[in-house]
Amino acid sequence: MTSEAEFVAALLASIPSDPRLEVPAGDDAAVLRPPAGRRTVVTVDMLMEGVDFILGHDCPPEAVGRKSLAVNLSDLAAMAARPEAAVVAVALPRQHGDTLGHGIQRGIAALAAEFGVALAGGDTNSWDGPLVVSVTALGSVAPGAAWRRDGAKVGDLLVVTGPCGGSLLGRHLAVRPRCREAAAIAAAYRVHAAIDVSDGLSLDTARMMASSGLAAVLDLAAIPIHADAVRMATLPGDGRSALEHALGDGEDFELVLALPPDEARRLVVESPSLADGAAFTIIGEVVEGAGLFAGTATGERVPLEVRGFIHALDTPNA
Amino acid sequence: MTSEAEFVAALLASIPSDPRLEVPAGDDAAVLRPPAGRRTVVTVDMLMEGVDFILGHDCPPEAVGRKSLAVNLSDLAAMAARPEAAVVAVALPRQHGDTLGHGIQRGIAALAAEFGVALAGGDTNSWDGPLVVSVTALGSVAPGAAWRRDGAKVGDLLVVTGPCGGSLLGRHLAVRPRCREAAAIAAAYRVHAAIDVSDGLSLDTARMMASSGLAAVLDLAAIPIHADAVRMATLPGDGRSALEHALGDGEDFELVLALPPDEARRLVVESPSLADGAAFTIIGEVVEGAGLFAGTATGERVPLEVRGFIHALDTPNA
Repeated sequence: MTSEAEFVAALLASIPSDPRLEVPAGDDAAVLRPPAGRRTVVTVDMLMEGVDFILGHDCPPEAVGRKSLAVNLSDLAAMAARPEAAVVAVALPRQHGDTLGHGIQRGIAALAAEFGVALAGGDTNSWDGPLVVSVTALGSVAPGAAWRRDGAKVGDLLVVTGPCGGSLLGRHLAVRPRCREAAAIAAAYRVHAAIDVSDGLSLDTARMMASSGLAAVLDLAAIPIHADAVRMATLPGDGRSALEHALGDGEDFELVLALPPDEARRLVVESPSLADGAAFTIIGEVVEGAGLFAGTATGERVPLEVRGFIHALDTPNA
Repeated sequence: MTSEAEFVAALLASIPSDPRLEVPAGDDAAVLRPPAGRRTVVTVDMLMEGVDFILGHDCPPEAVGRKSLAVNLSDLAAMAARPEAAVVAVALPRQHGDTLGHGIQRGIAALAAEFGVALAGGDTNSWDGPLVVSVTALGSVAPGAAWRRDGAKVGDLLVVTGPCGGSLLGRHLAVRPRCREAAAIAAAYRVHAAIDVSDGLSLDTARMMASSGLAAVLDLAAIPIHADAVRMATLPGDGRSALEHALGDGEDFELVLALPPDEARRLVVESPSLADGAAFTIIGEVVEGAGLFAGTATGERVPLEVRGFIHALDTPNA
């Protein structure tokens, strides 16, 4: 067992200093110097053991820490926001709590360093329950420049930033938040609306359309299918196609963007800042109406069942 | 059972709009207009069922929601920061999850309205575990104006903003964060250091002294003892004095401030912005050395045992 003082001292010592912090972690609160003339973007995601991850050989605490920050950075990317800072609250099981806590911290710190995130503090607790990690990320964006869900317009083309499906095979623990891609796109293209694919390509696209008060026609032949989706479809007893996995699995953390047609085509041709499996693909078009449709070769539209990670009261938002 | 869409829609509908929000809750992240020329102050606290509260007749979900925001506002007060916004992440037990969720939201919204906090979004989840609520609060403060723990100077007097002890009798669920008192003090007095009493008057004072690299001599006769501390000391089998409760119970959420002697005396005489049981009292003096001491009538110093809410890996910080 570690004493509180030792544990917190070790945690604080492991947090690198950052010029954006006027008062670093360890006081009652952290004080940040916000970048002048920009808006503050804020998002929070809570991950729970047994729901969002199962600790084990394939999922060490470092992976939990990494994912807990990554899903928040993905939300910032979906707003075209630059990551600035994060705070972390954890509930650690008493057993092996210090090992878990340090592992989580290492996973968070590594991704924070990679994406320029200042770690600004946290709240460490222990209890007799399962592991819970809640990260709040702060970003910044120029006034009026944040991408929203509700800005899609009729005629816009939908672009996804990478292949989807099968993330449960392990990719959901190695999320590549599309922050750099978002920055490159925001700098040079006119984006009307955006969302990140946390709960499923079709579900999150449907959410963007519902917010915008419009419908989308997807070109099913164009949906980029991840190799993991293909692999999952071949597993004994899976019973779903690779395309179904791509449309419904979720935790891909790619972005879906709505852009005017010429901007979308230019984006796909120029494909700026591609890395880590990113590939920009036009997957459909925004139309009048509500819901999602599949376009057929003969130009007809068939209603598409929206699939994704939905269950009662399990509600990722903001 | 409530569907995700219904639950989130109801939650979002209950959140009042705020001019500080350029993009309100419900998108991938919220976008805030930070006040010009000020720093951003950020703090997070996670409350867990069975550790920080026990749901029941005396503790409805509204009280949990209220407390989860109040403890964060207390941290902002301890930095002399003005509350601006908050985000909330919850893990709801599946049983009665929607009732719990709405109750928590009501408790948070009521306190947010009272203290001018813009609710900027959240993350709602359900699971088979106990209730967990994590609130992240954002505040603002002028550059260089945040109160820190490490600024106490030899000769400073220590002032506490109200009586301590016995909060477990119910006061810990009706926290009055000292935001208004902090604003009034920051506007007119020179404060060298501050901390809020979350884990015990003696423990938190000792933390401030440790951060400042100094010691404190407390005048035990001057410690303001809450009526609840007196009441607890009379409970059968309690075995502690009212003073011990005042020094060690914690969850008082009063502020301890270190000020130059003349400033401290002026503060106590003028006592600005007092409300809700606040009363400014000089309780001791900052001296060279380390640790806490009790001053005797003959001017001697006796080492004081630091008491408070400490257990292995239970580490409130930031």
